[in-house]
Amino acid sequence: MTMKKAERAAAITHLLTENPNRDFSLGYFADRFGCAKSSISDDIKLVRTAMESSGLGYLETTSGTKGGVRYVPYVSKEESLRILERLRARFLEPDRVLGSGFLYLSDIMFDPETVKGVARIFAKQFACLDADMIITVETKGIGIALFTAELLGLPLAVIRRESRVSEGSTVSINYFSGSADRIQQMSVSKRAIKQGARAIIIDDFMRGGGSIKGIQDMLAEFGATAAGVGVVVVSGGLENKKIKSFTPLLLMNGDEDKNISIDINRAVI
Amino acid sequence: MTMKKAERAAAITHLLTENPNRDFSLGYFADRFGCAKSSISDDIKLVRTAMESSGLGYLETTSGTKGGVRYVPYVSKEESLRILERLRARFLEPDRVLGSGFLYLSDIMFDPETVKGVARIFAKQFACLDADMIITVETKGIGIALFTAELLGLPLAVIRRESRVSEGSTVSINYFSGSADRIQQMSVSKRAIKQGARAIIIDDFMRGGGSIKGIQDMLAEFGATAAGVGVVVVSGGLENKKIKSFTPLLLMNGDEDKNISIDINRAVI
Repeated sequence: MTMKKAERAAAITHLLTENPNRDFSLGYFADRFGCAKSSISDDIKLVRTAMESSGLGYLETTSGTKGGVRYVPYVSKEESLRILERLRARFLEPDRVLGSGFLYLSDIMFDPETVKGVARIFAKQFACLDADMIITVETKGIGIALFTAELLGLPLAVIRRESRVSEGSTVSINYFSGSADRIQQMSVSKRAIKQGARAIIIDDFMRGGGSIKGIQDMLAEFGATAAGVGVVVVSGGLENKKIKSFTPLLLMNGDEDKNISIDINRAVI
Repeated sequence: MTMKKAERAAAITHLLTENPNRDFSLGYFADRFGCAKSSISDDIKLVRTAMESSGLGYLETTSGTKGGVRYVPYVSKEESLRILERLRARFLEPDRVLGSGFLYLSDIMFDPETVKGVARIFAKQFACLDADMIITVETKGIGIALFTAELLGLPLAVIRRESRVSEGSTVSINYFSGSADRIQQMSVSKRAIKQGARAIIIDDFMRGGGSIKGIQDMLAEFGATAAGVGVVVVSGGLENKKIKSFTPLLLMNGDEDKNISIDINRAVI
């Protein structure tokens, strides 16, 4: 009997952790493990305590006639700091500086372990915004945006640089990109954004804020709004950007050349 | 004491599930929970049994002086079939057919729950290939490629449609795209692919096979090879493609118009 209880606790933990933000009723577990709801209720208490000790997630009780639980991924202050320190160290690796005064970041932005950690910080930051969707513009921010969407249980829309036939009818806007020093276009399927949606914008890099301003303009075309803006790195200080309110994780100073310095934004920890 | 054991089993399950493909030594858990390695060893046995019942993943014992365990995500035959049936049903939703004879798939390809399920099938399929990396070409396949990379503990490289300054020096190739009916270019940073790498190619849609042939040509520029090719949907039959060997999940027939039919590829289940 002892073993049975511990095994059940492990099985419940496994199912919940593999399915973040999905509601499970006590009845579901009772049926699955062939025991009374009261036993499951005791198991859940125990799983809750066990999860709290990890700092990686917690259980939320869902109300209503069924009554159940949902696993919400989380990240502790200590783990947030570790994630950002590792990220900062990777940014500062000596061979990242490209001749053109840019940093090579593609490997970091598509490294699953790294981007999942970063997404945890955004998800925690934006969990209370009651958003309907995550939105980004291709390409390097897609990984972090997708993991953030997964952690918050939201759909992701990806704005394209050019209009594609596979997107159906699209809305396009022009915006000024400071880094390319020219007018650029972005384009999104009319189906991708619901009228009046509340979106969280996620992007990997902000210099002048032009592309995020572009995403905001795009949202406005749908009567939608940006409930939050998360950016992994902001370069050149927080002043004189095209957008007012945003949440950066790292602050980069210097010319993205030999003398760059990177600070962690303590406000997000 | 009983409670303590069950709580420990839940905590170990939680840590392992949240960190797929990462090695944990028995000593790590013993320190963390303040108990003997022999107790942890008993807990692990129990967690192993509990995980087997879910069909979502299993524990692999790692050898060496330290000795430990690693969580490997998995998907059962029953769950694979459920995932593909849901995917097929979404593809057949009535309003997906675009006037141009294409299907609108962006919402599906960036829905975290859907793409994570699909990625589980690819990860299971390709786990034994001993690959070094996952590779895709932007944009719609990135989500599935990233989750596959996460599940297999591999890095992801994303080939771009046009060369970008933030990629540093790049290698570009031309390829013939049947769907665009013209020569197109793809471009990847020289840093993104290691000489001689074994890559798994992941893409969302194959019509003629031109873009996957392009990725193979790109790999060849680095002396790298495609150890496997996973495609979510193949249209127009399996014959007369530009590449010989690939693993599709769904087979689409008809003109991608009103009369399309979609079959599940039973070989991947």
